[in-house]
Amino acid sequence: MPEPADLPPLPAALDTPALVVYVERVRVNIERLQTDLDARGIALRPHVKTHKSVRIARMQLDAGARGLTVGTLGEAEVMASAGLRDLFLAYPLWADGPKAGRLRALHDAADLRVGVESVAGAERLATAVAGSRRPLRVMVEVDSGLHRTGTATPDEAATVARAAAAAGLVVEGVFTHGGHAYRPGSAGAVALDEVTSLEQAAAALTAGGVDVEVVSAGSTPTRTLAAGAPVNEIRAGTYALGDRQQVVLGAMAPDEPAVVVAATVIAAKVGRAVLDAGAKALTKDMAAFVEGYGTIPAWPGAVIDKLNDYHGMVSLPAGVPRVGVGDVVAVVPNHVCPVVDLVSSFVAVTVEGRAEHWAVDARGRSG
Amino acid sequence: MPEPADLPPLPAALDTPALVVYVERVRVNIERLQTDLDARGIALRPHVKTHKSVRIARMQLDAGARGLTVGTLGEAEVMASAGLRDLFLAYPLWADGPKAGRLRALHDAADLRVGVESVAGAERLATAVAGSRRPLRVMVEVDSGLHRTGTATPDEAATVARAAAAAGLVVEGVFTHGGHAYRPGSAGAVALDEVTSLEQAAAALTAGGVDVEVVSAGSTPTRTLAAGAPVNEIRAGTYALGDRQQVVLGAMAPDEPAVVVAATVIAAKVGRAVLDAGAKALTKDMAAFVEGYGTIPAWPGAVIDKLNDYHGMVSLPAGVPRVGVGDVVAVVPNHVCPVVDLVSSFVAVTVEGRAEHWAVDARGRSG
Repeated sequence: MPEPADLPPLPAALDTPALVVYVERVRVNIERLQTDLDARGIALRPHVKTHKSVRIARMQLDAGARGLTVGTLGEAEVMASAGLRDLFLAYPLWADGPKAGRLRALHDAADLRVGVESVAGAERLATAVAGSRRPLRVMVEVDSGLHRTGTATPDEAATVARAAAAAGLVVEGVFTHGGHAYRPGSAGAVALDEVTSLEQAAAALTAGGVDVEVVSAGSTPTRTLAAGAPVNEIRAGTYALGDRQQVVLGAMAPDEPAVVVAATVIAAKVGRAVLDAGAKALTKDMAAFVEGYGTIPAWPGAVIDKLNDYHGMVSLPAGVPRVGVGDVVAVVPNHVCPVVDLVSSFVAVTVEGRAEHWAVDARGRSG
Repeated sequence: MPEPADLPPLPAALDTPALVVYVERVRVNIERLQTDLDARGIALRPHVKTHKSVRIARMQLDAGARGLTVGTLGEAEVMASAGLRDLFLAYPLWADGPKAGRLRALHDAADLRVGVESVAGAERLATAVAGSRRPLRVMVEVDSGLHRTGTATPDEAATVARAAAAAGLVVEGVFTHGGHAYRPGSAGAVALDEVTSLEQAAAALTAGGVDVEVVSAGSTPTRTLAAGAPVNEIRAGTYALGDRQQVVLGAMAPDEPAVVVAATVIAAKVGRAVLDAGAKALTKDMAAFVEGYGTIPAWPGAVIDKLNDYHGMVSLPAGVPRVGVGDVVAVVPNHVCPVVDLVSSFVAVTVEGRAEHWAVDARGRSG
């Protein structure tokens, strides 16, 4: 399986563990997908849950993204506060209690779309925004095979859409997330699942008298594979920063991941090293198809086989050059999204090569 | 295996996912261990990496704790800034680059002890604090079987101690962490490992001309089992808040965990439910001896079998009462330490029953 390679050098004098983002790589990742989708006439609405950064969201919008996708009200509030107002909350929000008031305020302050997957959820959304100046726009979520959330059949999608419209919401279209593409070799089939299930749902909505303007798909593994009619919007997120599992899945090239966790060797014994990056720097996210809690391109064959809060234990094969206490190494994390959420800022190596601190603006805004 | 049970009720109108801490349970947990160790004449120096909270640290000190244990310079800085100055950084800090200046400043501002496990590490510490008003105190780390960090033999411990003293550091004693107690049924044997290895290391230091004042052991599973001569200090951390794995291990009673993640059901299908608490609320920490990413006492037999960033997927057995969208449930997390690190504040249900927001002061201070 391919692994990340050819990392740029780390900045000097890092205070480890540090999350380092290579902005030039981010720029190239953003530009590449935008150019591809522009050529197909398909909109890009990148998911900000990966980077949670207003500056990176602005890079995406400046490159031509239509708007942003968010996973929580909190992420939406942070982006809207920064003036980034075209937002799709691609989540079946249950707009009850404190969330009802937050939704109403956000709807008044931004151009918001919200996901819906049940009649009860649609009615709750309508109640939360009752009396607002304009109707709330919603997108019906379709389950394309992940079996997480989403309507299970075209008929169910049409039922939810009609109920939403009857409750006073504006149904803008249908969306799905083919998260079952996070298995090696599955992306092509999952992209087909996404396209097919959206097509069928859209047809059912249209037949039921609900116009479908937006047909939205996409995860990073399927971001180009699902980018064809009737899909007219892609919502990839991880593509901007990249991570190890995208490389292992073949969804990104080995030199595309733009994020590493810099760690210092705090102990070195024969055949193993201990890093100052543990579960609170790397997370314990480890898909079944990767080995270890991240990969260290400078140490081929090394495996991060155990994490405690502040310790990362590494098994070293015979071939690794001498590892010494105090050495600083770059770890490419398995899954970047929860890793970014652990820090208040990252070290951004700018296009000009400066090391700056960029805020993780929506850190911890998980609800 | 035992599981958490008998949770107090959740506060009303929570904005989920929310980390809820029952302060009365915390108070009882703190009091119980303090009373036990007081009776044995053994000091308690609780580890703050579990709660990262100045208020809870103050509860521990007010109950009689000698001082605090921290895992990072960042945690030490936060506690020292709040006036909690008796601190043991139980970590083999590599005091290079930005960390050298931070260590020096902290040493000047607080009563600090630092862990050391190598001659090079000791020399680096001495260089970092050179010219300070008073010498830095260190503790030699002993590997009692976890095979993470720590000196491997009594001779090696004595060598590190002599080098530290020669470099101008004050060697105060020896410490170990029996983290291999995180296996069902192992706590008794691991406590014996801790006591034996500390005893041997202390003897080697004494024989080498280095006085040993402090002999420090302990994890939550071994917090009372290792609390006998020559050990005179215990550094448990998790005991104050508790979590699911402590109950499964038998290290805490089912009604002792004081922390839950409150989550809302956002989708309910036959045999499964989806919660709004995912990997960014619960973490993917799942030891080999537990099933699922946390447990839901209100739903016996339910398994949280998959997490995405903002979704927790739950398999429901036939016996669970009807689960509806909008229901709010309490999840006892597997491992509390990384869960607390995900939030800027928690909902503290006070002894009087009020719901307050308490800051996670040292959140994200992982270096």
